Amino acid sequence: MSIPEETTNYIDALSKGAPSRYDDLRVLVFNGTLKRSPEESNTEGLLKVPLEIFESVGARVDVVRTIDHTIPPGVWPDMSEHGWEEDEFPRIYRDLVVPADIVIIAGPIWLGDQSSMTRKIIERLYAYSGETNEKGQWAYYGKVGAALTTGNEDGGKHVSAMVLYSLQHIGMVVPPQSDSYWNGEAGPGPSYLDGEEGGQHNAWTNRNAVFMAWNLLHLARMLKDAGGIPGHGNNANDWDLSDPEHPNPEYR
Amino acid sequence: MSIPEETTNYIDALSKGAPSRYDDLRVLVFNGTLKRSPEESNTEGLLKVPLEIFESVGARVDVVRTIDHTIPPGVWPDMSEHGWEEDEFPRIYRDLVVPADIVIIAGPIWLGDQSSMTRKIIERLYAYSGETNEKGQWAYYGKVGAALTTGNEDGGKHVSAMVLYSLQHIGMVVPPQSDSYWNGEAGPGPSYLDGEEGGQHNAWTNRNAVFMAWNLLHLARMLKDAGGIPGHGNNANDWDLSDPEHPNPEYR
Amino acid sequence: MSIPEETTNYIDALSKGAPSRYDDLRVLVFNGTLKRSPEESNTEGLLKVPLEIFESVGARVDVVRTIDHTIPPGVWPDMSEHGWEEDEFPRIYRDLVVPADIVIIAGPIWLGDQSSMTRKIIERLYAYSGETNEKGQWAYYGKVGAALTTGNEDGGKHVSAMVLYSLQHIGMVVPPQSDSYWNGEAGPGPSYLDGEEGGQHNAWTNRNAVFMAWNLLHLARMLKDAGGIPGHGNNANDWDLSDPEHPNPEYR
Amino acid sequence: MSIPEETTNYIDALSKGAPSRYDDLRVLVFNGTLKRSPEESNTEGLLKVPLEIFESVGARVDVVRTIDHTIPPGVWPDMSEHGWEEDEFPRIYRDLVVPADIVIIAGPIWLGDQSSMTRKIIERLYAYSGETNEKGQWAYYGKVGAALTTGNEDGGKHVSAMVLYSLQHIGMVVPPQSDSYWNGEAGPGPSYLDGEEGGQHNAWTNRNAVFMAWNLLHLARMLKDAGGIPGHGNNANDWDLSDPEHPNPEYR
Repeated sequence: MSIPEETTNYIDALSKGAPSRYDDLRVLVFNGTLKRSPEESNTEGLLKVPLEIFESVGARVDVVRTIDHTIPPGVWPDMSEHGWEEDEFPRIYRDLVVPADIVIIAGPIWLGDQSSMTRKIIERLYAYSGETNEKGQWAYYGKVGAALTTGNEDGGKHVSAMVLYSLQHIGMVVPPQSDSYWNGEAGPGPSYLDGEEGGQHNAWTNRNAVFMAWNLLHLARMLKDAGGIPGHGNNANDWDLSDPEHPNPEYR
Repeated sequence: MSIPEETTNYIDALSKGAPSRYDDLRVLVFNGTLKRSPEESNTEGLLKVPLEIFESVGARVDVVRTIDHTIPPGVWPDMSEHGWEEDEFPRIYRDLVVPADIVIIAGPIWLGDQSSMTRKIIERLYAYSGETNEKGQWAYYGKVGAALTTGNEDGGKHVSAMVLYSLQHIGMVVPPQSDSYWNGEAGPGPSYLDGEEGGQHNAWTNRNAVFMAWNLLHLARMLKDAGGIPGHGNNANDWDLSDPEHPNPEYR
Repeated sequence: MSIPEETTNYIDALSKGAPSRYDDLRVLVFNGTLKRSPEESNTEGLLKVPLEIFESVGARVDVVRTIDHTIPPGVWPDMSEHGWEEDEFPRIYRDLVVPADIVIIAGPIWLGDQSSMTRKIIERLYAYSGETNEKGQWAYYGKVGAALTTGNEDGGKHVSAMVLYSLQHIGMVVPPQSDSYWNGEAGPGPSYLDGEEGGQHNAWTNRNAVFMAWNLLHLARMLKDAGGIPGHGNNANDWDLSDPEHPNPEYR
Repeated sequence: MSIPEETTNYIDALSKGAPSRYDDLRVLVFNGTLKRSPEESNTEGLLKVPLEIFESVGARVDVVRTIDHTIPPGVWPDMSEHGWEEDEFPRIYRDLVVPADIVIIAGPIWLGDQSSMTRKIIERLYAYSGETNEKGQWAYYGKVGAALTTGNEDGGKHVSAMVLYSLQHIGMVVPPQSDSYWNGEAGPGPSYLDGEEGGQHNAWTNRNAVFMAWNLLHLARMLKDAGGIPGHGNNANDWDLSDPEHPNPEYR
């Protein structure tokens, strides 16, 4: 079983008729599955829809399966400076997060909520939110973000809400309908990749995954062409939060 | 007590140095306070920061204090066609929601969550999400959304997460740092407008309210100049959700 | 279509073999559906499982369909003293909430969250949380609470989490597995009462509804027989929250 | 700075006047801080209130600071059987979780939500939820659960809601007012242990921590004396979830 052929044909036709070029864009996905490679990840299954779209329009895609990497928990940029022997995240941040135009936090649902791997990535991204760009904006300004979630039952919307909240809070733009998820009926049941009973034939989920991919492309294109978010009214350096009268003396 | 003068001066200076024109933009705020006019709304207090910014750059601002209106609960566009005697929402939708470029769902926190008035507005906005524009996109495409929240204690982030989730899910863009909130220390305590102990001197909240206002203006400007979100890959009419093979026969 | 006969037989057998008497217990349900009587409520459909159990063991059951009543929003015990013409809630509180041993907040899911009617009841219950019993405990001490939720898709766990949080926060005991819900696969689809495709044949949901009913009976029985929660360490009158040194002078 | 002396005296007086014996009870705390020992944990700071109460009435207390242990993420009881070199959790489960009467999930707030360490413990506890006791009830039946949370700002209620939801869903009883938290005003600010500005003088938080401790003791006492939750109507073995007609053939 896989995505219906007609759906695939439709998706391909959309890529061929793309209204712009996207081959300068970079996409970064964090997959928060609790299964290490090469075990099958259902989240990876649903990811195929947007990733095939990104690739077919020439965007570069990188996927970090968090659990396969040595990434300590913590709230400092480099945890190897805080007692941990190794920390791959600073390299991932510099090589993959910084150049990314599109960031997708993907992952499973456990007990109706985000996995520990998803929370860990959000913690580590947050640790860099103090960095600012040349306009004084937070480092994530100019990127667009999305949430993609699978579970055998209930929790897609809650997970999406918490992930998207985090992404916008640290500075990303959330495009329209940027939450793509599948889950089955209440109770134990098939997972996304489980044949006919799974999610690959769910037209609603497929549609939303397509909408998400294209809206991410549209907003990323728009922001890149505009040189990011205009640098006015959002300069972190203008504010001295320790002072209730607050605006930075330099500004005055 | 009110916003520190230096902060106000800084905000004014930002408006004077605005990098673009915004006097064609319309802003709509739903205030979900549980207090009817003319009782003082703390949420209205914090709203002053972004609203003064919008007004100073010439944008039109409309505020709907939900509790002051006859808006039945329900999930149909016009509840007067479903047994309710009166329903002001269809008019509010046509006159204020449709022409709005920026939509802010503001409101208080009760028991760490959204007020019943906030939930009601989200239900009623959702009831119109089946409408599509001339590109086949959901009716809210092209708008930008934000959440603004006050409470005497804990719950700002949870309320923001649920509000912003709803807005992006029905088609709005969520700009960077689009959640503006104030709340005090855990436990009973002052409300936003309660003098020195309240929130008006909280530099972090003031900063975020300013960031939110300007990021809403930036994204609204960008979207309006671009004619909305490009109409590719997000056409609701292309999909027949009742058919697992799904793409609309007309498309093929 | 309805609950499978074998399930019903099993449920009946459980009632006949009840290990105790429960005919002194009172159950109160708030149904937060957005549909007024006599329109069909899917939530009412799932409620039948626990309510038939309660009735078959002789407990008294009262159901308040919130939307059928004149209950203004607000955070005061009696909103008719705060500018509203009519308020049925004080009577509901005195006649039904106070004597209830078991309180179930039931309702639908909209956009993955609680309905405005559910939020309103939580606000109004919260307004009475300042009342204390003869032990100085909050008024809801001694009661047990549960959440029952239906939706055509995703959101059961999130709604349950927020409802149960509220109930324990104001003083109720939450028994094991006290969240009973049904929802279908991601996307548009059948509602609970929609024949074969709906939820009445979902064994997991039926099981959880049975577990919930019996665990509510067990804990309510236990608490009633014990005269409520022991009055030690939880006396609200011992604390003066306005004083950081806090314990009530009378205590010392 | 520390808890006000008068508060401490009051707490001690409560312990001396305890209405029952509790020295047969065991308390297990998981601290989900992201800081490894011996770094100071603010959550540990607030934990002192309930733990001193438990110890002063003779209950045994064990604290697992999750980050100090080799506990892989995952959803199987023993991850060392699923490719991980080492897994301390099976031993923790057998030696500390199984004999515990009271389980507290404590932890910090990051971006308004649970830490990755908190989510990991919930995942691992959930992995054992298939186990049943001699009555056919889920293994966690008979235990009582609570949430204790600290953060420098906003998120206490949301974290509590998700933690308590998880605990009741896997079978624990949640006593009244079982969420104890402290956080400061919106924005950057002091943490719980940060002197006069921190949380130790917050009478509301101290009160709630005391209420939580005593309500946990009361419910644990009640359940232990009753031999757990009565075994009627909640036997997992009676249900065959794969069969929509469901009740176990043996039952019939």
